[in-house]
Amino acid sequence: MGIVLGTNQYGKAENRLVRIHRETDRHEIRDVTVSTALRGDFTAAHRHGDQSDVLPTDTQKNTCYAFAKSHGLGEIEDYALALARHFVDDVAPVRGARIAVDEFAWERVPVGGTGHDHAFVRTGSEVRTTVVTVDDDGAQVVSGLRDLVLLKSTGSEFAGFLVDEYTTLAPTHDRIMSTSLVTTWTYTGTDVSWDKTWANVRRILLERFACVHSLALQQTLWEMGRAVLEEHPEIAEISLSAPNRHHFVVDLAPFGLENRNEVFYAADRPYGLIEATVGRD
Amino acid sequence: MGIVLGTNQYGKAENRLVRIHRETDRHEIRDVTVSTALRGDFTAAHRHGDQSDVLPTDTQKNTCYAFAKSHGLGEIEDYALALARHFVDDVAPVRGARIAVDEFAWERVPVGGTGHDHAFVRTGSEVRTTVVTVDDDGAQVVSGLRDLVLLKSTGSEFAGFLVDEYTTLAPTHDRIMSTSLVTTWTYTGTDVSWDKTWANVRRILLERFACVHSLALQQTLWEMGRAVLEEHPEIAEISLSAPNRHHFVVDLAPFGLENRNEVFYAADRPYGLIEATVGRD
Amino acid sequence: MGIVLGTNQYGKAENRLVRIHRETDRHEIRDVTVSTALRGDFTAAHRHGDQSDVLPTDTQKNTCYAFAKSHGLGEIEDYALALARHFVDDVAPVRGARIAVDEFAWERVPVGGTGHDHAFVRTGSEVRTTVVTVDDDGAQVVSGLRDLVLLKSTGSEFAGFLVDEYTTLAPTHDRIMSTSLVTTWTYTGTDVSWDKTWANVRRILLERFACVHSLALQQTLWEMGRAVLEEHPEIAEISLSAPNRHHFVVDLAPFGLENRNEVFYAADRPYGLIEATVGRD
Amino acid sequence: MGIVLGTNQYGKAENRLVRIHRETDRHEIRDVTVSTALRGDFTAAHRHGDQSDVLPTDTQKNTCYAFAKSHGLGEIEDYALALARHFVDDVAPVRGARIAVDEFAWERVPVGGTGHDHAFVRTGSEVRTTVVTVDDDGAQVVSGLRDLVLLKSTGSEFAGFLVDEYTTLAPTHDRIMSTSLVTTWTYTGTDVSWDKTWANVRRILLERFACVHSLALQQTLWEMGRAVLEEHPEIAEISLSAPNRHHFVVDLAPFGLENRNEVFYAADRPYGLIEATVGRD
Repeated sequence: MGIVLGTNQYGKAENRLVRIHRETDRHEIRDVTVSTALRGDFTAAHRHGDQSDVLPTDTQKNTCYAFAKSHGLGEIEDYALALARHFVDDVAPVRGARIAVDEFAWERVPVGGTGHDHAFVRTGSEVRTTVVTVDDDGAQVVSGLRDLVLLKSTGSEFAGFLVDEYTTLAPTHDRIMSTSLVTTWTYTGTDVSWDKTWANVRRILLERFACVHSLALQQTLWEMGRAVLEEHPEIAEISLSAPNRHHFVVDLAPFGLENRNEVFYAADRPYGLIEATVGRD
Repeated sequence: MGIVLGTNQYGKAENRLVRIHRETDRHEIRDVTVSTALRGDFTAAHRHGDQSDVLPTDTQKNTCYAFAKSHGLGEIEDYALALARHFVDDVAPVRGARIAVDEFAWERVPVGGTGHDHAFVRTGSEVRTTVVTVDDDGAQVVSGLRDLVLLKSTGSEFAGFLVDEYTTLAPTHDRIMSTSLVTTWTYTGTDVSWDKTWANVRRILLERFACVHSLALQQTLWEMGRAVLEEHPEIAEISLSAPNRHHFVVDLAPFGLENRNEVFYAADRPYGLIEATVGRD
Repeated sequence: MGIVLGTNQYGKAENRLVRIHRETDRHEIRDVTVSTALRGDFTAAHRHGDQSDVLPTDTQKNTCYAFAKSHGLGEIEDYALALARHFVDDVAPVRGARIAVDEFAWERVPVGGTGHDHAFVRTGSEVRTTVVTVDDDGAQVVSGLRDLVLLKSTGSEFAGFLVDEYTTLAPTHDRIMSTSLVTTWTYTGTDVSWDKTWANVRRILLERFACVHSLALQQTLWEMGRAVLEEHPEIAEISLSAPNRHHFVVDLAPFGLENRNEVFYAADRPYGLIEATVGRD
Repeated sequence: MGIVLGTNQYGKAENRLVRIHRETDRHEIRDVTVSTALRGDFTAAHRHGDQSDVLPTDTQKNTCYAFAKSHGLGEIEDYALALARHFVDDVAPVRGARIAVDEFAWERVPVGGTGHDHAFVRTGSEVRTTVVTVDDDGAQVVSGLRDLVLLKSTGSEFAGFLVDEYTTLAPTHDRIMSTSLVTTWTYTGTDVSWDKTWANVRRILLERFACVHSLALQQTLWEMGRAVLEEHPEIAEISLSAPNRHHFVVDLAPFGLENRNEVFYAADRPYGLIEATVGRD
């Protein structure tokens, strides 16, 4: 029984890149982290250290920066598609490329009621993401966001659950529900208005989180995913991963105080972790 | 020559506390991390393990949560002052108390053009801070903020600097200047409109960062600090600590591309670190 | 075209658990982080908020702690198998369970030339891992380690690579090679001496890293994986993920100094990322 | 009342530097992070943006790397002293310099019972530190360590403490005591065998932690500090900062199990924080 090389890929991870569009005095900024990974038959590199089919990760890094100039850096999906196609089309041994881009948001510094031309302030810890894969099967775009931190101070229950000999939890009909959402959705094609679609998906997710009376985090995730698919036929499926950031009601009775869901201890670990994919038949 | 106990303090650090004010259906949220530290003569605890003068850190934690109910949690400076005074006034062996509060900002989830009553989304990675100290000398309030990430895409120079045998840096008259600001300011008293003052100081800092044509980060910090003091007589001094988050212009010439301050590599480490205090005569 | 629930799971992540075995005065310590995830048909929970088939994540947490007492906590693979089998066998709606355990190593504090009975010091940042999955197909055990930080100060080359129009890297025949290894290997069964096998795999990985003259990180990973499979027939395949932690030779020529691979700048980002699986025919 | 510039300093923080000593085939490695800060009269830079007295932080970085070659990098205290003296002595406007060095430990990869010549593995998360300050008052060396994680599974009590209306904690005569120690000590001079002294202080700290029957963390810190001062006359004082990493006994009674200090929940936050300085009359 022989020993064989299985799946493998290599690339340059976490290239930090800031692109300033300064065609006019009113600058635009795109702040991204780009990771590349190339696939193909790299057996010789592994078995014999023969690098003749290996495009250095340093070259991949250079390409990321060069493309930000030559192709511009507008919608991250377009930028990632251009990079991935270049590697597959122009570098002979490469059969597949995976480009991941994280984008960090900035807004203009407000000065005298309007946004400044070239001074910016980072907004939020939330990250917009895309992962583009190009190979013999074509191009696949999976976009999303992470670290979107949400909290409802009421409108969330958890009751009627399965009880076994290790269950001590009391049911509740009013609790805080909070999460730091990670979600990705898969597009059916590449003819998409990326920025506009992303913003609308985010809006739907926020609204569903806020407006659905929650009987469980599972139900909330389902409703969020379902609403996205209903409104966006160009999305094939959506995956949601939601840590349940527990907020425990502090017992203030020993101090003669009543705590009607007003004072909470926000716990770090452990946390519930609810994961679901919503798709189509 | 004897061995002696020097300065010492003890407390409960990083109590994570969320306070929901739900007197009406339109909830308010305050999300804070509170750290306590008590000072006094705790020699017996150190030398003999005698705990009779030691209020457990667990009790300090309980007090933080209880006060969030009994005193409410409005402006963090008021909350911290109440806690500090309680420890000093009500717990006999305690001669001084230091209460530090970090506050994390939330905004309402927008639904149909308006903010939701009880669903919130975290805004920014920026943190509002206060450190209150109460002892025989009275109360001191030092408020501030950290992780305010700023960037100017032009309007920043660095030239005319000292050159020695280890200098290789070229002067520049157009660069990105970016920082993740940490700043604290000391109030002259406690009769202050905390929220309002904090918001105005933040506004001044942002505007000065944006509008001052910068010859060096030192100069920008000075101008930021000076403007705060000029507008706020209730502030005695302000300290600013500003990492210089370097954005290096990527050399694209090998690829036949000209990079006119458009494509940058955002470096992690090392970083310049500029620290200054601006005060009054 | 209907909207449907796809793959989903839920559980309690990152239960921090310390188990002291104190049957004798010479205590033993196991320090782990346990994450559970349950699988089955949870459609009702998602679509209707009906929790009657949902075992709360709080109960899963309780079970982790209870089993650490009732079953002890010896080899983490055995502990994870017991937990996974319990959920699948004893909780009706559960069809599959995934238990992940990270273990942190401690050693005894040396006192007078010998290890203390009940005082311990953490060793290393390296983490031992296992992921056990039990479902209708039986039990699968995937063990490994992460954050094993390695460095060779010579014996590493990178030359003869593919060159395109974005390539600026110079070939080198002597460089630092460093990584923070993440590796997992899949066992063919569960009748394994877990601790002993883990320690031997780790030894092989370290020795191969040290002794193979490296023409590329790919080759080093292949040799590490191959050696593990050759010596361990009970391992079906091994995956290795290795960031190439770049150490750049600092140009000291401007200061009249020659740098013969003696002074390096250790970069944070970007980093090469080489991933490979080595298996059997 | 005029606005004035107060204390200020600037430098390059977190220069990551690896020094390989390869005079023989048996290489030696030093892995450090160096931060510089310069002090003096930099009023013109702040008030007018005049950089003529400002040595760029980029130059300071270059100097760190150049000195690692020209002076070698042996004991970190010597390296930091050389750097600090250079800035104060050789760069006219500089009146004071503060050099901080963190050192990360490596050991040789064991191969066939002996350590490899040029392959290394990182040991521990523990960091050795020094902060050297040189100014008109001479040189001050403050060395130490951080992230030394310790745990006693018995031999620790907490009882007889002060009780007030917010106290709910029960006294205990057997608990886990664990900390992640940060400590710094101040030398009386610079004629010290740095490596040897550091190792011996670490040994004393570990032994005292292990062997003192603890009535409180305060007492343990005192005994640790006292033992260091008694054995090391060249140390003027020692500061210890010890988070009390709480390990809570899990209540297993609901599951019919008795937990005799065997199964613990290791909490993240909040944590007690005990800080003390031990000095001399």
